Amino acid sequence: MGSHSTPSFSPLDPKSFSEESMRVIDFLADYYKNVEKYPVQSRVEPGYLLHQLPNTAPYCPEPLENILKDVNDSIIPGLTHWQSPNFFAYFQANASTAGFLGEMLCSGLNVVGFNWIASPAATELECIVMDWMGKMLKLPSSFLFSGTGGGVLHGSTCEAIVCTLAAARDEALEEIGSDCITKLVVYGSDQTHFTLQKASKLVGIPQANFRSLATSFSSEFALSPDVVRAAMEEDVAAGLVPLYICATVGTTATGAVDPVEPLGHIAKEHKVWFHIDAAYAGSACICPEFRHYLVGVELADSISLNPHKWFLTNMDCCCLWLKNPKSLIDSLSTDSELLRNSASDSKAVVDYKDWQIALSRRFRAMKLWVVIRRNGLANLMVHIRSDVNLAKRFEAMVLEDDRFEIVAPRRFALVCFRLKPKVDDGDGDGSDLNRRLLDAVNSSGRAFMTHAVVGGVYVIRCAIGSTLTEEQHVDDLWKLVQEKARFLLLDNTLLSNGGI
Amino acid sequence: MGSHSTPSFSPLDPKSFSEESMRVIDFLADYYKNVEKYPVQSRVEPGYLLHQLPNTAPYCPEPLENILKDVNDSIIPGLTHWQSPNFFAYFQANASTAGFLGEMLCSGLNVVGFNWIASPAATELECIVMDWMGKMLKLPSSFLFSGTGGGVLHGSTCEAIVCTLAAARDEALEEIGSDCITKLVVYGSDQTHFTLQKASKLVGIPQANFRSLATSFSSEFALSPDVVRAAMEEDVAAGLVPLYICATVGTTATGAVDPVEPLGHIAKEHKVWFHIDAAYAGSACICPEFRHYLVGVELADSISLNPHKWFLTNMDCCCLWLKNPKSLIDSLSTDSELLRNSASDSKAVVDYKDWQIALSRRFRAMKLWVVIRRNGLANLMVHIRSDVNLAKRFEAMVLEDDRFEIVAPRRFALVCFRLKPKVDDGDGDGSDLNRRLLDAVNSSGRAFMTHAVVGGVYVIRCAIGSTLTEEQHVDDLWKLVQEKARFLLLDNTLLSNGGI
Repeated sequence: MGSHSTPSFSPLDPKSFSEESMRVIDFLADYYKNVEKYPVQSRVEPGYLLHQLPNTAPYCPEPLENILKDVNDSIIPGLTHWQSPNFFAYFQANASTAGFLGEMLCSGLNVVGFNWIASPAATELECIVMDWMGKMLKLPSSFLFSGTGGGVLHGSTCEAIVCTLAAARDEALEEIGSDCITKLVVYGSDQTHFTLQKASKLVGIPQANFRSLATSFSSEFALSPDVVRAAMEEDVAAGLVPLYICATVGTTATGAVDPVEPLGHIAKEHKVWFHIDAAYAGSACICPEFRHYLVGVELADSISLNPHKWFLTNMDCCCLWLKNPKSLIDSLSTDSELLRNSASDSKAVVDYKDWQIALSRRFRAMKLWVVIRRNGLANLMVHIRSDVNLAKRFEAMVLEDDRFEIVAPRRFALVCFRLKPKVDDGDGDGSDLNRRLLDAVNSSGRAFMTHAVVGGVYVIRCAIGSTLTEEQHVDDLWKLVQEKARFLLLDNTLLSNGGI
Repeated sequence: MGSHSTPSFSPLDPKSFSEESMRVIDFLADYYKNVEKYPVQSRVEPGYLLHQLPNTAPYCPEPLENILKDVNDSIIPGLTHWQSPNFFAYFQANASTAGFLGEMLCSGLNVVGFNWIASPAATELECIVMDWMGKMLKLPSSFLFSGTGGGVLHGSTCEAIVCTLAAARDEALEEIGSDCITKLVVYGSDQTHFTLQKASKLVGIPQANFRSLATSFSSEFALSPDVVRAAMEEDVAAGLVPLYICATVGTTATGAVDPVEPLGHIAKEHKVWFHIDAAYAGSACICPEFRHYLVGVELADSISLNPHKWFLTNMDCCCLWLKNPKSLIDSLSTDSELLRNSASDSKAVVDYKDWQIALSRRFRAMKLWVVIRRNGLANLMVHIRSDVNLAKRFEAMVLEDDRFEIVAPRRFALVCFRLKPKVDDGDGDGSDLNRRLLDAVNSSGRAFMTHAVVGGVYVIRCAIGSTLTEEQHVDDLWKLVQEKARFLLLDNTLLSNGGI
């Protein structure tokens, strides 16, 4: 090779692929080893990164070392560490080795299975894995390919809800007239994830036709069938058309469970689409002791859950099962000459592009398949139960301390608690006190939790489920909470005594 | 440890994470080494996989070896190999080592940056990378964060179009009344990707209000401004309200380019949202010689392109820039107490959940950042130009053979060609002949191309851009096409002479 030869540009050379990938593996393994040392919630200020990176792309290639150095020096300080064992915020996004391996295979093979022929294995594995998951949850065969239904992997619950709402909408408009979209009404509770309202708006249903029905302490924040029935009857009387109701198994704020069976019966009476959003708690229903929360699922038209929350599956992955996939396909299918092929023409295959918003799609089934096989149902149940046991442990510690209270029943691995408000210290409802407690905990960098407001009460949410979390982390969290509470209460007492 | 101790279950143990990940890296490196040996288009029959895998999930954990063996034995034969150097179908999904490394970091860190505080670095890196990309494309500062606009990474063009359509719709309904959705009209050409029609339906615009305006050979399949103006005037006269027009830079069928500037002026006149879909060819516009296709981009409200097609970025990744992100946010934002935080309240940060459909989101910016840095603008241009040169090479070979013709002008790395129809052999328009030629090529397993029908003509599309494709593969493809054509034409001659 002469000294003037241009180095060849081989962006997918197997040798450098292996070498560079292994360096990233080492980097990530080190990250997991060290993740506990970082402040869980990032402490950077808005705009911090702009000052650390150039404002234009480099002209020349840069070595991997430089990039990894910048990840280490500039990116990691700006991360809120979802994989920290001390992450108890929102709902966890629990990564695992198996989930990561599945992602690598998905990303490395990089096939785009929008229809069967574009990679038959991608489609068929997805059908098989959806049936596996459905059977683990003991879904009725009406939701399985081996029965009369079927399932699909989306990226998010929001996508699942947008697609099922569109299917329900188009079925309804077929019946009542295509210009009647402004008559359709969607029902959820004030605990339903906001994704339902966003999705309703997205598919063109007027915001005025979205019902966020009230829940309360007395019903443990579950949606009351009576309230739903009354709302639907009122809407019908006003000339509106009930379209879609969403029941949640494991609400975001407190992990509440809507009563699936009675809501299902009301849905049938009013012929509305009945969706079950089990994004968080659905994964727990693989354990027999939690399966009862899905009693009545046979009345639903669709059900979704997110393995990327609590099923050891790296982001992103949402399972959606349908009793009548044809309704989804009728709404979302497109007939393009460009994609025409004899397999699709034969109608003997599934073309997943017609089950989702986008044409392109990743091979997510590979990831979920690896997660299930590498762990087996046995260890997946161990995983769920271990998190639930940690939550019980935390709950017990809260209950032992008179200054605190559990605000809503713990059903899964989410504990909602607060410092009891002190009537005599002028704090009123305790919101301010608990907000300060949460801030104190989070700003310590030693843990990260988030809050909710339910029934007018500000609560601190301790969501247990990060993969690396062990007993010690839960114990440390409780010590941290107590430590910060002690300071706060002391401070409050001093304040109310006119001190400091 | 006693013999009865339960093995501990550590689904994210750094040691086994490293070991198992390295085995998957080896597996993938071998895959790339061997990918050329597999039939490009899978030859399996529908349902093949059902017979090879159990119909329920395993109860016990399985070793990685078993899983990789099944990937090898059962999955790979069912893949259509998008990473094969002989893949010339659809548009390529060009994987690269850098894209894979970025995916690994995204998946391994597994943060969920739905708002700024949930991982500031994820949001800020995305803002920075969107500006980098925008500057490489010489987008006006009205699309950049450093100017008055901003960008976001979606998973697909369809999502980008759904979101911008929703923003346009909500702005319009604000003006003309929330019950006027059935008056809104969306415009594209008969070459516009079907995603526009699907997205229009998804956001609740009646199918009757979707205009698929005719193109023809005479305009090289570009959308004619006169046709658009006439359609809009007709709709306005009928009491309808033009809402949204999509121009395509690099259509799927032939790589045609709609005239951005004149269409932009019409959009301004009629006050409709103007979107540029540069999903495929946008990447090429980083090269000065292709940038002219974006002249007039300053008239657009939004522009999108897919790095997962032609920018060495593994699936999935779609860049969307907006001149007025507020319109998108107004349509898609949600105000949830659960996510409330002081950074968001200060309005000083970007919360990307309000720029997309879903709440959850992957750290895609990491992937695109690694792709850009590891390659640099220099090599990214080498990559685009090398594909374009291979397409020119293929085109030249087609032109040298009198039996063939180029059906539509080649602008990028997509060559649309066919065997000329023989008027005297009863084949009519040549559709059947070319369909058989394409079938013969694809069923050989040695290459995979797809077809289009434009202006009533069946064409074979040779889309060059798989990362591993080199001169030799293009030369081999042409030899294969010629070989199959020779047989077909001989066969046709025999048939028309009453032979065989």
